Amino acid sequence: MSDRNGGVSRRRLFGLAGAGAAVAGLGATAGVLATARDPQVRATAVDTSAPVPFRGPHQAGIVTPAQDRMHFVAFDVTTRKREELVALLKDWTLAAERMTAGEEATQGGAVGGAPQAPPADTGEALDLPASALTLTIGFGPSLFDDRFGLADKRPEALVELPRFRGDDLDARRTGGDICVQACANDPQVAVHAIRNLARIGFGKVAVRWSQLGFGRTSSTSTTQATPRNLFGFKDGTNNLKAEDPTALAEHVWVTEGPQWIVGGSYLVARRIRMHIEIWDRTSLTEQEAIVGRAKGTGAPLGQTAEFDQVDLHVRGPGGVPRIAEDAHIRLASAESLKGARILRRGYNFTDGSDGFGHLDAGLFFICFNRDTRTQFVPMQQALSANDKMMEYLEHNGSGHFACPPGLSQGGYWGEGLLG
Amino acid sequence: MSDRNGGVSRRRLFGLAGAGAAVAGLGATAGVLATARDPQVRATAVDTSAPVPFRGPHQAGIVTPAQDRMHFVAFDVTTRKREELVALLKDWTLAAERMTAGEEATQGGAVGGAPQAPPADTGEALDLPASALTLTIGFGPSLFDDRFGLADKRPEALVELPRFRGDDLDARRTGGDICVQACANDPQVAVHAIRNLARIGFGKVAVRWSQLGFGRTSSTSTTQATPRNLFGFKDGTNNLKAEDPTALAEHVWVTEGPQWIVGGSYLVARRIRMHIEIWDRTSLTEQEAIVGRAKGTGAPLGQTAEFDQVDLHVRGPGGVPRIAEDAHIRLASAESLKGARILRRGYNFTDGSDGFGHLDAGLFFICFNRDTRTQFVPMQQALSANDKMMEYLEHNGSGHFACPPGLSQGGYWGEGLLG
Repeated sequence: MSDRNGGVSRRRLFGLAGAGAAVAGLGATAGVLATARDPQVRATAVDTSAPVPFRGPHQAGIVTPAQDRMHFVAFDVTTRKREELVALLKDWTLAAERMTAGEEATQGGAVGGAPQAPPADTGEALDLPASALTLTIGFGPSLFDDRFGLADKRPEALVELPRFRGDDLDARRTGGDICVQACANDPQVAVHAIRNLARIGFGKVAVRWSQLGFGRTSSTSTTQATPRNLFGFKDGTNNLKAEDPTALAEHVWVTEGPQWIVGGSYLVARRIRMHIEIWDRTSLTEQEAIVGRAKGTGAPLGQTAEFDQVDLHVRGPGGVPRIAEDAHIRLASAESLKGARILRRGYNFTDGSDGFGHLDAGLFFICFNRDTRTQFVPMQQALSANDKMMEYLEHNGSGHFACPPGLSQGGYWGEGLLG
Repeated sequence: MSDRNGGVSRRRLFGLAGAGAAVAGLGATAGVLATARDPQVRATAVDTSAPVPFRGPHQAGIVTPAQDRMHFVAFDVTTRKREELVALLKDWTLAAERMTAGEEATQGGAVGGAPQAPPADTGEALDLPASALTLTIGFGPSLFDDRFGLADKRPEALVELPRFRGDDLDARRTGGDICVQACANDPQVAVHAIRNLARIGFGKVAVRWSQLGFGRTSSTSTTQATPRNLFGFKDGTNNLKAEDPTALAEHVWVTEGPQWIVGGSYLVARRIRMHIEIWDRTSLTEQEAIVGRAKGTGAPLGQTAEFDQVDLHVRGPGGVPRIAEDAHIRLASAESLKGARILRRGYNFTDGSDGFGHLDAGLFFICFNRDTRTQFVPMQQALSANDKMMEYLEHNGSGHFACPPGLSQGGYWGEGLLG
């Protein structure tokens, strides 16, 4: 078989296809780039098809400039043997590092193996560049039960999320022992990665749920323009950014708990159905009052440009606050939350229709924070209780995962926890 | 409100965002471009963010170089009033033409209207370029019942598809009075278009089903590289191409039936779940035997390069045909089907998981043909009866639609049928 197919590697094909690689320089300037010292941030600021380094102090896919597409998966661990779980995490690490480099899951995996054996790589990404693929792993609270002897390694911050007002969680979209967030600028590359990890895990893990996102709803780097969510508003203007390491240290990177999570971050995922048909019948004034920003420019109400400082104290005629008491950006602001901030990294989704004549669309919310108990939870409690936007939202999926720090050379996913 | 948001148009924002527009020149050469005389083909051969002309002899989105992403929707018409249906089709046409040009659904629709009124455009594509958006409309057999007096205008070729062996059709993913295929190089642009058409149709139509596709599985132009499906194989190598008008005239463009469909085409949609986990346990040799091509290069078995002529008569050791009797490309070949060919235009999909530990993934098959009775139907009968690949496939959604010819200046969707 090798005479026909041998030696075809994703990297070589990438070279051939390079002429077609998308090149974006959205907002990138030399000055901005100079401030992005992290190679995981810098790699894709200019070339959206380039690889992002897999190893580093932190996992890639957190402050990496948010790629355009996402495939998120939550696995149940089905084996009861700790050594099988460890072996899987080692196998996954090898495959993940290769795939993020634009390679097949194993050397010659798609067509270079024994012809009488199933190929080790499923092949659909053979001709595609790395596309800034990042794979980010996290461990859910359920992994720390009595199956693998991990109970005493569970961080206190890795809580079961409380029930928030209005929650309508579907068990088929909630929880999971392990999550992997795949982000890439080509969705086929993200899907290929999740599929091959699921395949490598056959007999040890099973897909509990998964979600595709087609459009990022946050910027995580000052090199990126602010995208729009399916309410039509710019989303994430005041997000934490890769270029502000002081704020990341304060709000994103874990400093407490068992050693294996220090330098990592807690990921919260929420599948938020947006009742877009109802929203679309709301007036522009009402929409802007609910969000607290102008729809066109993204400027905070009372200001004129997107990145103007939000001022919650500006009043309009009759002394009425320009940013209403129940406006989304007021309730979610650090000022209202004793300084708490999160790094948002969500994606728009549309999953067919709901059987009642509507699209099943919304936002797959992902955030990273240093301690979910003092950041995401109080924020979501405030929003679920008072945010006027809640009338148009339905939280129907949820997950909470502890993402370990980045991998050093030779290390594997979860080594600090299980090694 | 206009002082803050007025005059923000997608075109203006497109200009601002132009620096970030993806530019691809995949395989495009001056010589190839010179053969693409159709402006709907030529527009996006170089710049994947550019608009595709909405009007022309044929609807865009058929031989237009297949864009990377798709959102397909099937509507039920809920009004019983013919004049309301006509009014909707006129409103849709205005909005569709604007959106394919990179504009909002109506002038100033997102933020330029009365602040006390719901915006006429939902806004999530405000900052995005046209992204080669095409919107292609088709009418299903059910539209030609007694509701709108169209029974005598139903083309004979617009049959209810026969039940094919192995069909497991889900009524929630099958049929529909009207379909719209949105294809674009940015999924948010495709989703925005379908959403706004659904919104304009509120009270007159309801979404019956919809499907997102993340990666094209066919080329429809010689300017495009052949993509891979989720079996990891290059798909559509021998597809009909925009640059071969003689073959298109023979196989794609309708020449018979009521006048309103002449110059149009019949669209067949099939949601094909692919049991990728089972496929992935099959040997490379077996996979290649099932397809009839080498996985790496895409060469027909017995040949050496992807675009080598398929030869169904080459025999290997022992006189065994290199391309097996039950190989996919043999059964689907024009040689095996009395010359019948189709224009394929499908997309890979992944819709979360199936609840049994697997991804719900596959191919959303779309084809266009001149007469479904003599092209798609016999092909699918041969495949469903004998194709060894069927073991890994499950057809669970289906639709058949008559797509009228292109629009002249001032014309509207369905004018020939309802005007």
